[in-house]
Amino acid sequence: MPRKYALLDETALVAIEAQAAQILSEIGVELQEDSASLDAFRSIGARCERQRVYPDASQLRELIAQAPNRFVWHGKTDAASVEIGGSRPIIAPVFGPPKVLDKSGETHLGTLQDYRDLVRFCDQSDAMDSTGFLLCIAHGGGLAVPHMQLLKAHMELSDKPMMGTVISEVALRDIADAVGAGPDQCRLLHMVNLTPPLTYQVNPLRCLRASAELGQGTVISSYMMMGATSPVMMAGALAQGLAEILVGLALTQIYRPGAPVVGGIFATPFSMQFMGPVFGTPESHLVQLAACQLIRRLGIPVRGDGMISSSKLNDAQAGYEGAGVLGASLLGGADLILHSAGWLEAGRLVSLEKCQTDMAWIEQVLPVYSEAAV
Amino acid sequence: MPRKYALLDETALVAIEAQAAQILSEIGVELQEDSASLDAFRSIGARCERQRVYPDASQLRELIAQAPNRFVWHGKTDAASVEIGGSRPIIAPVFGPPKVLDKSGETHLGTLQDYRDLVRFCDQSDAMDSTGFLLCIAHGGGLAVPHMQLLKAHMELSDKPMMGTVISEVALRDIADAVGAGPDQCRLLHMVNLTPPLTYQVNPLRCLRASAELGQGTVISSYMMMGATSPVMMAGALAQGLAEILVGLALTQIYRPGAPVVGGIFATPFSMQFMGPVFGTPESHLVQLAACQLIRRLGIPVRGDGMISSSKLNDAQAGYEGAGVLGASLLGGADLILHSAGWLEAGRLVSLEKCQTDMAWIEQVLPVYSEAAV
Repeated sequence: MPRKYALLDETALVAIEAQAAQILSEIGVELQEDSASLDAFRSIGARCERQRVYPDASQLRELIAQAPNRFVWHGKTDAASVEIGGSRPIIAPVFGPPKVLDKSGETHLGTLQDYRDLVRFCDQSDAMDSTGFLLCIAHGGGLAVPHMQLLKAHMELSDKPMMGTVISEVALRDIADAVGAGPDQCRLLHMVNLTPPLTYQVNPLRCLRASAELGQGTVISSYMMMGATSPVMMAGALAQGLAEILVGLALTQIYRPGAPVVGGIFATPFSMQFMGPVFGTPESHLVQLAACQLIRRLGIPVRGDGMISSSKLNDAQAGYEGAGVLGASLLGGADLILHSAGWLEAGRLVSLEKCQTDMAWIEQVLPVYSEAAV
Repeated sequence: MPRKYALLDETALVAIEAQAAQILSEIGVELQEDSASLDAFRSIGARCERQRVYPDASQLRELIAQAPNRFVWHGKTDAASVEIGGSRPIIAPVFGPPKVLDKSGETHLGTLQDYRDLVRFCDQSDAMDSTGFLLCIAHGGGLAVPHMQLLKAHMELSDKPMMGTVISEVALRDIADAVGAGPDQCRLLHMVNLTPPLTYQVNPLRCLRASAELGQGTVISSYMMMGATSPVMMAGALAQGLAEILVGLALTQIYRPGAPVVGGIFATPFSMQFMGPVFGTPESHLVQLAACQLIRRLGIPVRGDGMISSSKLNDAQAGYEGAGVLGASLLGGADLILHSAGWLEAGRLVSLEKCQTDMAWIEQVLPVYSEAAV
C-alpha cells in the first residue's frame, strides 16, 4: 500500500538517461593509466581513444543487466549474513575519517584503540548490519596502521559482514585471502569511488577489477560536488553521475558476468565561500531520491548515504542534516546505506557519541520508513 | 516535474475515507455543552442525539467544498501579507509553551520580555511568514499576562500576519476588534484543536463559531496520541482524524459559507512507559504525509507541523526529530506549517537558540523541498 517516493516522473527520468547516454558517446569517460580497463572495453567493441572510452549506453545497460538484483553479503556466520536488495535496507557505518572526537570534546588522530571501540559499537548495535571498514584511520607512531591489523579487529570482535580495503589492489587481495573470500560467496564489499567529472583513477580501476574477479561485491559510486566537479544544477549532476557509474558497473560485468554490484549517485553543493563541499544539504536529499529511481531502473541494488553532516559537533545541525540524508535514502528505497552513523565534519571526524545517537535514530526510523518505501 | 510524495495510493485513500464515513454515521462526534453547534447540524438535517452528531460524510464534503482552496492571510501591510494554499508553504512559529530555556541552560516560566523577544525573532527571520501567537505563556506576578498585552507585542513589533487567541470566545473577539478584522479580510488564524477521540469541547466550538462568523481563518486540527486517544495503527488514526476534522470544517461553512479554513491531522505514538505522547517520531512523519493527501482531496489548504521534538535541549535529537516532521510536511505539500521553530520538550518549552537554528534550517530546506513538492 505505501510506496517509495517517486520524485521524478517517467519523462524526467528518460530525459536524464538520454543525457547520460549523450555524455558517454560524445564526451566519454577517462580510465587513467590502466590499459586493462581500456582493453576490456575494446573487447566489447567500444570506441576507445587514448585513455578515454566512448561507450554506447544501451550496451552498458545490457551488461549491467547480468548483475544480480539482490545478493547475500556473508558474515562469519550464516546468522550474521544479510541480503542486499532484499526486503529492507542494509546499514553500514562511517568509512574513512582520520580524526576522532572524544568525550571531552577534543579531537585526536584515530588510534587502533578507537578503531576497535568503533568495531565493537557496530557489532553490538541492532541498527548496524555490518562493521564496515576503515571506521577511522588508525595511527600508530604517526603512521597509518596496516590494513591487516584493521582486519584483525573485525575478525576478532564481530561476526557481522565487513567491507574491504580499497587502499590498493594488493591490500584488497590480502584481505580477501585472509577471510577466504571465494567467487561463490560475497564476503567483502569494496567501495570504488570514481573521480568526477567523468574519470576513474588507476587505483580504483585495479580494485574494481580485483573485486569483480574475486566475485566480491563492488559499490560503484559517483560523489559529486555540484558547481565544482559536476554541473551546479541537480538534473545535470544526475546525468553526469549516471554516465559515470554506468561505465564502472559495466566493467565489473565484463570481468565477471554476474558479479555482485551496488550503484550510487551522490551530489552535494560546493561552497564558493570556503571552497569545499557542504554535506547534509537539502539539495543532496533530492539528488538521493532521484538517484534511487535511476539506479533501480538498472536492476541492481542502490547505495544511499546515512547521517552525514558538515557539523563539527553532534549538535542540532548534525541531527537535522543527517536525518535529511538518511530520510531521503530510506524514503527513496536505497538498499545499502553507507556512512550511516558516526560521521562529522564532512567525513573527516568520527564521534563515538554520535555513533550512539545515530544508531538510536536509525533503530527508530528504519522500520517505519522502510515499511513506507515498500 | 518533481512532485509531492504520494505515500498512499488511491485504494488506500478511498479505504480511509470510507472508514471515516462509517465512524461518522455509526459512532458520531460529540459536541460538548454547545447547543448552537448541534442546532447548526440539525439545520442541515443531520441526525443528532443528546450531544452527539451522526453526519453524512458526503454532505460534510459538499459543505467544505464551499471553502476557498487558497486565501490571503493579511498582515498589517500588503507587503507582509501571504497566501495560504498558494505556491509555497507558509511558516509560523511554536504556539503555547509555558516555559523558556535560557542561554545558560536553565528554564523559567515565560515572561512578557521573553514574549517580546520571540515576536522580534519571528519578525526578523526570513524563514517566518508570521509571528504566530502565544509564542510562550507570558507570566507576570505568577499569573498569565492577559491576551491584549500579547497582542500589543505583535502590533508594535511586526507587520507580519499573526494568529489569534483561542483562550475564550470573548478574548478572540477582543483581538479581532482591536486589529479591525472584518469579513472581507482574514487578519487572524485561529487554531481550533478538537479533543480526540471524536469530541469537540465547548470552548473550541465557541471559538470556531466566532472565528467563522467574523470571516477569520480557522485551522481545524486533530492532534491524536496513537494508542491512547486514537487507534495505535496509522490507518485507523487517519480515519478517526479525518472523521473528526470533517465535522469542524463543515461547521465553519454552516456558520459562514466560504469562511477560510485549514485542515490538519496529526498523530504521534503514546508511550506506555512514561504515559505521554512522544513527538518527532517517524510514525508521525508518515501520518503527516498521508494527512496531506487526505486533506488536499477536500479542496482546502493543509496544515502541517514543523520542527517538533521530545528533546529537552536543542541537541542532535531535536535536530533529527524536528527535521523529520518538517521534511514530511514539506515533501507532503503542507500549505501552512505551525510549530515550525522553537519547540522543545513536547511543546512545553521554547528556546530562543533553537528558534535560530530551526530558522536557519528552514531557510535552507524550504526552497529546495518546496520546489520538489510542486
